[in-house]
Amino acid sequence: MRLRNKPWAKDFMAEHPEMLIMDSEGKKSHWAEEFGNPQPIHIEVGTGKGQFIIGMALANPSINYIGIEHFDNVIVSALEKAIEASKPSNLRLLRANGEDLENIFADAEIDRVYLNFSDPWPKTRHEKRRLTHAKFLQKYEGILKPGGEIHFKTDNRSLFEYSLVSMTDYGMKLLSVSLDLHANMPEDNILTEYEEKFSSKGQPIYRLEAEYPIRKKI
Amino acid sequence: MRLRNKPWAKDFMAEHPEMLIMDSEGKKSHWAEEFGNPQPIHIEVGTGKGQFIIGMALANPSINYIGIEHFDNVIVSALEKAIEASKPSNLRLLRANGEDLENIFADAEIDRVYLNFSDPWPKTRHEKRRLTHAKFLQKYEGILKPGGEIHFKTDNRSLFEYSLVSMTDYGMKLLSVSLDLHANMPEDNILTEYEEKFSSKGQPIYRLEAEYPIRKKI
Ligand SMILES: C[S@@+](CC[C@H](N)C(=O)[O-])C[C@H]1O[C@@H](n2cnc3c(N)ncnc32)[C@H](O)[C@@H]1O
Ligand SMILES: C[S@@+](CC[C@H](N)C(=O)[O-])C[C@H]1O[C@@H](n2cnc3c(N)ncnc32)[C@H](O)[C@@H]1O
Repeated sequence: MRLRNKPWAKDFMAEHPEMLIMDSEGKKSHWAEEFGNPQPIHIEVGTGKGQFIIGMALANPSINYIGIEHFDNVIVSALEKAIEASKPSNLRLLRANGEDLENIFADAEIDRVYLNFSDPWPKTRHEKRRLTHAKFLQKYEGILKPGGEIHFKTDNRSLFEYSLVSMTDYGMKLLSVSLDLHANMPEDNILTEYEEKFSSKGQPIYRLEAEYPIRKKI
Repeated sequence: MRLRNKPWAKDFMAEHPEMLIMDSEGKKSHWAEEFGNPQPIHIEVGTGKGQFIIGMALANPSINYIGIEHFDNVIVSALEKAIEASKPSNLRLLRANGEDLENIFADAEIDRVYLNFSDPWPKTRHEKRRLTHAKFLQKYEGILKPGGEIHFKTDNRSLFEYSLVSMTDYGMKLLSVSLDLHANMPEDNILTEYEEKFSSKGQPIYRLEAEYPIRKKI
């Protein structure tokens, strides 16, 4: 669904500032105030239509969640779902680009980064766009608390192979790896839209948790 | 095939000391003399019936290879194959236990460790027997040159998942990972016996190359 097919979308999005933040200006260092409490904050970069981040917010009320998505025509669906879910108070949707994380969050303001079914960018000349490229790993490290974690799921074998190498080359350690998540489905696994689509086709879903080294920030 | 079904095996094994070393005593620090040249030495721990290490020796004459296997009734088959292959001068088979590597090789005497289809030891109480347990990673590090590599192939998903975590927890970095080696078969891939067996059943073969960090030895 494209925005041009949703003429109501622009107004609709503007009408829900308590759930969808269209402009992150002034939020940096003030996310605890935004949520009204000092709970840990977990973000998802590339949140799509929001099924995962909304499910997580409902399942874990003592964590604050921010779902970040740069496309209006996608995030509007997440907003609809969040409203259907009665707008969990520990959830925000943020229209922003993952490239700008350092401008959106202060040092150590975030506790965990989720990446789910990130665009694979298979061509080598697009490597820098992959959300697990060293360039992004550095952005996440900048906003995460020391020893912060990335949790990553994908059906894309090449992107997962790339990410294992990229993360360990960056100095991260793997805390857990599953090469067929749905063969031993964890009870607390929340399916993303893409996960539902790809696993029903019988493709294995890959998942990892990786941890940053504890080191002095430069 | 068991040894008791090969009454000739014991004599046969003793008759080929230039290819099969039954006792490693006195070899530590003297492997270059054993081969008669200072080429890099790559070892395989758990070499089984030898198809991989013999294939590697034939394909790479400028590397010296040692295939290590603790069971007589298995290594005798490797010896037969090595003789059929006209006993490559850059190959030795060694009857020994991987537990004893530090007694067999000196510090930094080895350039690379291969592990292929290592026994999975799925029960947690047998974790220390897995050839990618920290205990073994430490043994390999002791005999490898700084920055040495482990190359590991397996069909066993759980063992591969475990190994990714164990190796990165140990401080190693992944240089390359394939989660379906035979989907893009590298030209220089030498099949092991188990690899032939499992890949013909359509199971994915996992492979990784991992590197030790450069650090001062304790
Ligand atoms: C393949 S979809 C996956 C959506 C969802 N995570 C799921 O698993 O169903 C990837 C999403 O990430 C968004 N995205 C990609 N790069 C982004 C970036 N740099 N910043 C924000 N969103 C991004 C895309 O617009 C798209 O909606
Ligand atoms: C599953 S088989 C794989 C054989 C061969 N690498 C392949 O891929 O076809 C594992 C082999 O490792 C040997 N092995 C297991 N643990 C060992 C150890 N600690 N030292 C020496 N050999 C070992 C076993 O005897 C067995 O022959």
